[in-house]
Amino acid sequence: MDIIEKYESAVRSYSRGFPVVFEKAKNYTLTDTDGNTYIDFFAGAGALNYGHNDDAMKAKVLEYIQGDNITHSLDMATVARQNFLKAFNEIILQPRNMEYKIMFPGPTGTNTVESALKLARKVTGRRTVVSFTNAFHGMTLGALGVTGNQFKRKGAGKSLGDVVFVPYDGLMGLKSDKGELDTLDYFEAMLNNGASGMGHPAAVIVEPVQGEGGINAASMAWLKRLDQICKAHDIRLIVDDVQAGCGRTGTFFSFEAAGIDPDFICLSKSIGGYGMPMAITLIKPEYDKFAPGEHNGTFRGNNPAFVAATAALETYWRDDTFAKGVREKGEFITKRLKEMAAKHPNVPSEVRGRGFMQGIALHVDGLADAVTEEAFKRGLIMETSGPADEVAKLLPPLTLDQQGLEKGLDIMEQALDAAVQAHADKIGKVA
Amino acid sequence: MDIIEKYESAVRSYSRGFPVVFEKAKNYTLTDTDGNTYIDFFAGAGALNYGHNDDAMKAKVLEYIQGDNITHSLDMATVARQNFLKAFNEIILQPRNMEYKIMFPGPTGTNTVESALKLARKVTGRRTVVSFTNAFHGMTLGALGVTGNQFKRKGAGKSLGDVVFVPYDGLMGLKSDKGELDTLDYFEAMLNNGASGMGHPAAVIVEPVQGEGGINAASMAWLKRLDQICKAHDIRLIVDDVQAGCGRTGTFFSFEAAGIDPDFICLSKSIGGYGMPMAITLIKPEYDKFAPGEHNGTFRGNNPAFVAATAALETYWRDDTFAKGVREKGEFITKRLKEMAAKHPNVPSEVRGRGFMQGIALHVDGLADAVTEEAFKRGLIMETSGPADEVAKLLPPLTLDQQGLEKGLDIMEQALDAAVQAHADKIGKVA
Amino acid sequence: MDIIEKYESAVRSYSRGFPVVFEKAKNYTLTDTDGNTYIDFFAGAGALNYGHNDDAMKAKVLEYIQGDNITHSLDMATVARQNFLKAFNEIILQPRNMEYKIMFPGPTGTNTVESALKLARKVTGRRTVVSFTNAFHGMTLGALGVTGNQFKRKGAGKSLGDVVFVPYDGLMGLKSDKGELDTLDYFEAMLNNGASGMGHPAAVIVEPVQGEGGINAASMAWLKRLDQICKAHDIRLIVDDVQAGCGRTGTFFSFEAAGIDPDFICLSKSIGGYGMPMAITLIKPEYDKFAPGEHNGTFRGNNPAFVAATAALETYWRDDTFAKGVREKGEFITKRLKEMAAKHPNVPSEVRGRGFMQGIALHVDGLADAVTEEAFKRGLIMETSGPADEVAKLLPPLTLDQQGLEKGLDIMEQALDAAVQAHADKIGKVA
Amino acid sequence: MDIIEKYESAVRSYSRGFPVVFEKAKNYTLTDTDGNTYIDFFAGAGALNYGHNDDAMKAKVLEYIQGDNITHSLDMATVARQNFLKAFNEIILQPRNMEYKIMFPGPTGTNTVESALKLARKVTGRRTVVSFTNAFHGMTLGALGVTGNQFKRKGAGKSLGDVVFVPYDGLMGLKSDKGELDTLDYFEAMLNNGASGMGHPAAVIVEPVQGEGGINAASMAWLKRLDQICKAHDIRLIVDDVQAGCGRTGTFFSFEAAGIDPDFICLSKSIGGYGMPMAITLIKPEYDKFAPGEHNGTFRGNNPAFVAATAALETYWRDDTFAKGVREKGEFITKRLKEMAAKHPNVPSEVRGRGFMQGIALHVDGLADAVTEEAFKRGLIMETSGPADEVAKLLPPLTLDQQGLEKGLDIMEQALDAAVQAHADKIGKVA
Repeated sequence: MDIIEKYESAVRSYSRGFPVVFEKAKNYTLTDTDGNTYIDFFAGAGALNYGHNDDAMKAKVLEYIQGDNITHSLDMATVARQNFLKAFNEIILQPRNMEYKIMFPGPTGTNTVESALKLARKVTGRRTVVSFTNAFHGMTLGALGVTGNQFKRKGAGKSLGDVVFVPYDGLMGLKSDKGELDTLDYFEAMLNNGASGMGHPAAVIVEPVQGEGGINAASMAWLKRLDQICKAHDIRLIVDDVQAGCGRTGTFFSFEAAGIDPDFICLSKSIGGYGMPMAITLIKPEYDKFAPGEHNGTFRGNNPAFVAATAALETYWRDDTFAKGVREKGEFITKRLKEMAAKHPNVPSEVRGRGFMQGIALHVDGLADAVTEEAFKRGLIMETSGPADEVAKLLPPLTLDQQGLEKGLDIMEQALDAAVQAHADKIGKVA
Repeated sequence: MDIIEKYESAVRSYSRGFPVVFEKAKNYTLTDTDGNTYIDFFAGAGALNYGHNDDAMKAKVLEYIQGDNITHSLDMATVARQNFLKAFNEIILQPRNMEYKIMFPGPTGTNTVESALKLARKVTGRRTVVSFTNAFHGMTLGALGVTGNQFKRKGAGKSLGDVVFVPYDGLMGLKSDKGELDTLDYFEAMLNNGASGMGHPAAVIVEPVQGEGGINAASMAWLKRLDQICKAHDIRLIVDDVQAGCGRTGTFFSFEAAGIDPDFICLSKSIGGYGMPMAITLIKPEYDKFAPGEHNGTFRGNNPAFVAATAALETYWRDDTFAKGVREKGEFITKRLKEMAAKHPNVPSEVRGRGFMQGIALHVDGLADAVTEEAFKRGLIMETSGPADEVAKLLPPLTLDQQGLEKGLDIMEQALDAAVQAHADKIGKVA
Repeated sequence: MDIIEKYESAVRSYSRGFPVVFEKAKNYTLTDTDGNTYIDFFAGAGALNYGHNDDAMKAKVLEYIQGDNITHSLDMATVARQNFLKAFNEIILQPRNMEYKIMFPGPTGTNTVESALKLARKVTGRRTVVSFTNAFHGMTLGALGVTGNQFKRKGAGKSLGDVVFVPYDGLMGLKSDKGELDTLDYFEAMLNNGASGMGHPAAVIVEPVQGEGGINAASMAWLKRLDQICKAHDIRLIVDDVQAGCGRTGTFFSFEAAGIDPDFICLSKSIGGYGMPMAITLIKPEYDKFAPGEHNGTFRGNNPAFVAATAALETYWRDDTFAKGVREKGEFITKRLKEMAAKHPNVPSEVRGRGFMQGIALHVDGLADAVTEEAFKRGLIMETSGPADEVAKLLPPLTLDQQGLEKGLDIMEQALDAAVQAHADKIGKVA
Repeated sequence: MDIIEKYESAVRSYSRGFPVVFEKAKNYTLTDTDGNTYIDFFAGAGALNYGHNDDAMKAKVLEYIQGDNITHSLDMATVARQNFLKAFNEIILQPRNMEYKIMFPGPTGTNTVESALKLARKVTGRRTVVSFTNAFHGMTLGALGVTGNQFKRKGAGKSLGDVVFVPYDGLMGLKSDKGELDTLDYFEAMLNNGASGMGHPAAVIVEPVQGEGGINAASMAWLKRLDQICKAHDIRLIVDDVQAGCGRTGTFFSFEAAGIDPDFICLSKSIGGYGMPMAITLIKPEYDKFAPGEHNGTFRGNNPAFVAATAALETYWRDDTFAKGVREKGEFITKRLKEMAAKHPNVPSEVRGRGFMQGIALHVDGLADAVTEEAFKRGLIMETSGPADEVAKLLPPLTLDQQGLEKGLDIMEQALDAAVQAHADKIGKVA
């Protein structure tokens, strides 16, 4: 760790929370240079849905590199690029009756978001984009502009205009699916009021489940209504499925159960399968209006990632077996989290999320952070999220087996117990 | 190519100019699916300074992946990350008496630029960034804001504020090193005039050689004076060495001969050695003021790229042999380009650039594009640049041998001859 | 009217709705060149609270001009300026225990708003200003930025950033004073959520009664809570009392009953008494932080207006008699409007506003416009407001006597009857 | 003065430089409350081209007010408004073969500028406006956005985007009319370079003589070429003649000798004749595209100002006598200023301006301010301008007689002598 501290910028973050040097990794475990192993409930912030160093993909990647197949190709045509395009259409889009053009916008989540925002503004000729409270879309200025977190926004050092934030489903703990408050009533009222200051937006950008924002899952009815409002008002709907997509919620896209029909879909993180940088933007054919090169970037042709991505689709998405397992284990996770919460009735908390993207919001200052620290001490890697880091969240690899899942949850339970114990004085006050 | 046309977005560009499917690649050659080989004078837009699939790096990457070493690690500490940090300091920074903290800002050029802009604004508390005519810094909104190209800027679909463009060295063909016009006189006059509208900038961002902007190379005296002006006015100097760095001009950084001392340096493209996405931002220690996680991103830990990057440093930069070869071959390129230009005295033209980043500006509409088309027909891959695509440019791998270089230049010469022939009617008018 | 049509820009508006040429005016009547007289329920859009050509002020103005006293003085000290400053302090501020510095920001409403926005941003070092749905603050870009009306906003031709709109009291017809919905719950939730996208605002700008926005009157409890929220979050509170101030609601400031304590207060329109351009910005001493000349303008010294303004204060505000009359007549107006509304039970409507700033919202397309047309035909000048021009509003001079008031209201009633008659087909559908 | 200090905001400026209370005024003299008289070489910052309290206008204004003619009329048709429209067309526009629609945009200079900027953006659908170094156009955010002065710009407290500043004629002391440097070469190069960062501007806004910016007068050839560039590139040309118009330079419009044909012309200050707030925007008929009310404002119908404005046109502009006198006296001013400058050869200085808008730039720190202080002590009111307040400027009423002019210039000469004396130590260093 000396080298990191000496040479790396102060901006580094995870190496502070997990202050060891990692060396090896396999499926849901990590090993540090001292030989300690850790269960990974973080999965590269959702970039490792298929676990670390999956054997099937690894074999394909090694074979590809070994054979001197082209590695870096900008956006030139390559065999690996073609294979991915074909597989994605055949395995993902066609069975879902989805028709989209595929854009390679640069290999990161923020880049696919930037490309979708640009295109939505271009095809509408309008400027304002509607985003939601607690949204997180990326760190480059376009994506940061639609990100709610104030700490991140201030990092821009300049104003981030042409965005209007509206309340996400579940704002202030009130949920549309419980009939408590439909935040879309507010959005629709603003759209219908010619003096609301909102104007006619170009686009709405939404995460079906907000990861960084605190594992907030919108209801399917809310997503469906949002889609209908967008259609009624000729607003482009962008779904940012960078973290929640690629199976994390138990379906390939996180919005499938809502039956919606977005104009643009942003995918990154696990799309590359093996953790190598890759991103795509799905564009409805009628909006595929960029001029050649209007949005470009050097690393649009990371062929080893295409190879792994294609292998991931072939291995896991030809049928529903894999996704079904995720949904079933997801229910198990919910059950366990609710039990953990119930064990500490004096801690104001709620269980949030869907599938393999769940967490417990712990409304005691510093408690969620303490849980992750205690977990790390016990060999479990997990993180917090939410504007006040108030959610202890789980993003395990989808390839985790039942044994690993239970082991991880057991550790999490112990960590929560220990953290609650250490915060006893505060909790007294809260309860 | 059918698959590409059918499934990929209209934004694709290079697959239009080079309409074949590439499969294999080695050093400076590419092979398509029909077995045709091409000499590569484009080198992944400067991301492949060490050629395709370099054997030394390949061995290291394969060994790393084979051994189930960690692939994707966010910004956690890993062995591969540490090795890169150590090697970069030892091999690059220390011998040049440079002291910088290293930031991993996300694995693309636009991302390192965004991080430097944010940090310059943060440490100064100011907003305006000065950029130069013909600058190109990236496609996400922060980097696009300091990019001059109007076609790209319009893609933003919104205003890109807080930037002032000033003339780059050589504007309108007048060069400071020939005593013709020092564009920095203008910049300094604006800074010294409290009513110029410029205000007190946070930063200047500059490419020592502008690649996309038309292979414009600033003189060393101009760069030195720019650095002095920045220091005198407490303005942070950001050097974007994404394309011109990593040896392309014959030194590791493209500004070494100027003896300047930037506050931030942006590197990407060839820093990863093997064409895998990677970027770093070098930050003077006194400005290393990001809070942890203030700028982040998923793919800050692309470990196979770290492995290749380290191998590249070890292989090519332990001594000056490699760089010296680049400088010598660079002079040969200049000589050949000047001869080509001289062959067509009725074509208004000039030879531009430095080292392995050179080109001929051809001031006849469509002529440069015709050159690249003719070159491709003859088995040479090269591209145009400049605001009107008026420069036929060369970015060969630095690992190219003399034979390959001559073969490529011979083809280029034939391509130019053919293109001039085909544009004879226009050229008559121009001359 | 030929001259107007031939020479004046298409931007003219009121000369379209009232297509006669006005010549003479006295108190609440206007006379056109054909000798027709009109009752004025518009009062120069609230700039003529003391009626047209008030005799006391007229005498003072004539005497001032006759005596070659200085007319135009920029912001130099003059006798007339001093007299106004003294009178305003003595008659308005001191009796209300208010301590404010007085700024002359240029002689229009938009100018006082711009000055307050600038100063709020300066003293906080922050940028975002919170404004409300249906707000109207002016047409220059700073004031337009905090104006909700989309038709007006689009006129800017550029983005109007650094503003967040939140719902005004009574949004969607739900009122806080009836316990239906407190829109400030929403505002407070956004402030307390570090990822709401709102950040820490510099200021809130609010009209206690929204005139152009549709005669929406906030409850006193809502205003009080707004003030408290601002204080709790260190946000500057700007009250725009340009239209509702100077007695229009029955107290000099429209917010007096709320017991609030704004940091800045914007006054214009009737502050000049006689309809001559004038504006002031009241600034709490601790925020009086402009440098000399930091906001300036040529017409900050319109001395005839100062003379009339002083006379108005002397004549009408030495005791409560005048204001009491406004409050009493205001109740009469409410009563009459409610009766009118009740006469047409099949027209969805509501009576809005306070004092001499009231109206009927008529939720039938085009009906309110028809009312004003019918009123004009019958010799009554009144206007619509609201985002869809859906409110037939009254802004009579406060100096109107009971007879004039009743006569005007009688005409309005007839006009409403006639308009409802003409819209019978639509109303059938609505009811 | 106690009252001013006690009650008025710290933003006040001229009452600091001229710390007396003014009471009476006639033509070119002011009288304070102690009976001291002053020669006025400031003329309300150019709003009193016809002097203080002109008898002909005064009679008309008194008669108008006395007769209870309508004072405040928003933008309704009135007799006074019609008379002005007719007179302006007949006396000003038609004899010059100019065809413009007249807009009343609110009664201040900043308001006419805002209206022209809006309209230029609307009719082009573009955003960027080109302004010039040292430009001054007003204090509201739209006009401030095209103002160069950094102290004023910072007052906005937010970014002022969508503007590009280019060098005005005479930047760095080099003048196009002396063949030294044509700054429009730079502008044209930026327009013709698709990567200059400038894009396609909506408009250029220019003052033919920059008042606040330092009494910089563009050459007629430069203005003519600017007009041609705008036409060639389909850019709207806005002339801000707020200070230099209404005869100040010896013709009604300051650009008449250039033979240009602006799309929009902004007039305020002296257009109202008597110093009462008024402004108009002249709009070429083909660009008269505002929707009714798209830009509005309360004080668009200041009828006493219309009456005085009409009287001013009738009195002074029916023939060339008045203007000719201005031009002749202007030459006398130039002669005297040059003599004054020549008296102090060790003071780096230059005489600037045209007609009754001239000054001496004194390149010694604080010297110009000292001149105005010494002048005030001797009974002459004059001001400085320029980014560093380095120009001692004269803006006398155009109605000044030869005696008054000479008396004023004599005092100025004495003041300069005294100021130079007091700065002897600095001047030694400078020379």
